Amino acid sequence: MKPKLSIIKIGGNIIEEQESLSQFLRLFAQLGGNKVLVHGGGKRATEIGKRIGIESKMVDGRRITDAKSLEVAVMVYAGLVNKNIVAQLQGNNCNSIGLSGADANAIIAVKRPVSTIDFGFVGDVRVVNAESISKLLSAEFVPVFCALTHDGHGQLLNTNADTIASEVAIALSQTYDTTLYYCFEKKGVLRTIAEPDSVIKRINMESYQKLKQQKIIADGMLPKLENCFHALNKHVQRVCIGDLSMLEPKAQLFTTITL
Amino acid sequence: MKPKLSIIKIGGNIIEEQESLSQFLRLFAQLGGNKVLVHGGGKRATEIGKRIGIESKMVDGRRITDAKSLEVAVMVYAGLVNKNIVAQLQGNNCNSIGLSGADANAIIAVKRPVSTIDFGFVGDVRVVNAESISKLLSAEFVPVFCALTHDGHGQLLNTNADTIASEVAIALSQTYDTTLYYCFEKKGVLRTIAEPDSVIKRINMESYQKLKQQKIIADGMLPKLENCFHALNKHVQRVCIGDLSMLEPKAQLFTTITL
Repeated sequence: MKPKLSIIKIGGNIIEEQESLSQFLRLFAQLGGNKVLVHGGGKRATEIGKRIGIESKMVDGRRITDAKSLEVAVMVYAGLVNKNIVAQLQGNNCNSIGLSGADANAIIAVKRPVSTIDFGFVGDVRVVNAESISKLLSAEFVPVFCALTHDGHGQLLNTNADTIASEVAIALSQTYDTTLYYCFEKKGVLRTIAEPDSVIKRINMESYQKLKQQKIIADGMLPKLENCFHALNKHVQRVCIGDLSMLEPKAQLFTTITL
Repeated sequence: MKPKLSIIKIGGNIIEEQESLSQFLRLFAQLGGNKVLVHGGGKRATEIGKRIGIESKMVDGRRITDAKSLEVAVMVYAGLVNKNIVAQLQGNNCNSIGLSGADANAIIAVKRPVSTIDFGFVGDVRVVNAESISKLLSAEFVPVFCALTHDGHGQLLNTNADTIASEVAIALSQTYDTTLYYCFEKKGVLRTIAEPDSVIKRINMESYQKLKQQKIIADGMLPKLENCFHALNKHVQRVCIGDLSMLEPKAQLFTTITL
């Protein structure tokens, strides 16, 4: 039997608010077995970029990462956010180690080719180095990934944190019985946005298609769920979506995605 | 016989200039055996701090690290400088892993007590976790430390990079035959500042006292040499001071410090 592994991605308001972040990190530290944390850090980068005089550039609603924006992302994601998370986890007796995809050569990406839009220094994941990450897990470290990768030739790249989480989960699912958790401010995928408890407890490929047609699942939730199904199709054992209470031992209200 | 370990601290102009940094990293990548890199990043932090609107505070010529300055230090040292070094080393086939003292619980410090001066978030090293660092070395990773530590309770602290290098060397010298290299823009400890080749090739405790009395060694070189003798007294096998050519296989012109 494969050893168990939990990969947890946090984003959104959980990172922005110090109180919810601390609460999350306490729960994460208590979680048994092998674990990996993946975090975003979006709004903080935008805020610090503005203070330095770098505005976020958007084309067709999508963020462009020019050289200066990448510098800010590296400072905020790999520096400020990652190291504060690691220091707090250490304070909770969780021996974490903060990583970008360049560290331990963990995640190699390719700079997204220019088509109609030049996204700049954005990387699409090419290889996750499962051997390197497994070595860290075997040495009883808890890897904490920020949303940066590298091209293997010295260039750091900005990569979507949801994608990093699913790609790391896919790569490690060969060695580990892997559960992927997407943890955000809502209790799960909601039937009615205005009702925070209207969680759809189980979604499979079939019900997903219906929910999409009915426009119950829409907008930002679509790429999130596509990521989930992609991970399941590539042999990740379980995918769950919910708020931080999902990590509590007796958690009940969250969404489980299956094929 | 203990396995060999090289601990190399880079600072000053080597980090500031992209060309000298690249040259250094190529030499470092080629170095055989176990190795650890420690880097500062001072001027970059001051420059970015200014752009964000945070001025460096000095009291009696010593830098004060308030909460905002610490944020900048974390962003620049652990983010911008550390991750770019790691990505470049990966580009040179050196499997590096960037660390603050919080990562892998590697370096625990205490916030410097307030006496006549409140230095703010500055940490004096209390424990180097040799076991954690050895685990990374055994797994064939090359640790790259920035000049940050943590207090074990969630607080990051700013710590002098020369001190980090000597304390890491001391802790690891129990397991490894350790050489500590201080690599900067000069060819070694100079007899005459204006003559870049006037390197004093060997300094021991006795000659150091004379050179100090003669004011040949003065100012910023004094704490550097005190650090060297401290390391040697604590069983670090060799300490060398020089520029990046010191890492070349046939290097000859640098200073070796002995007891």
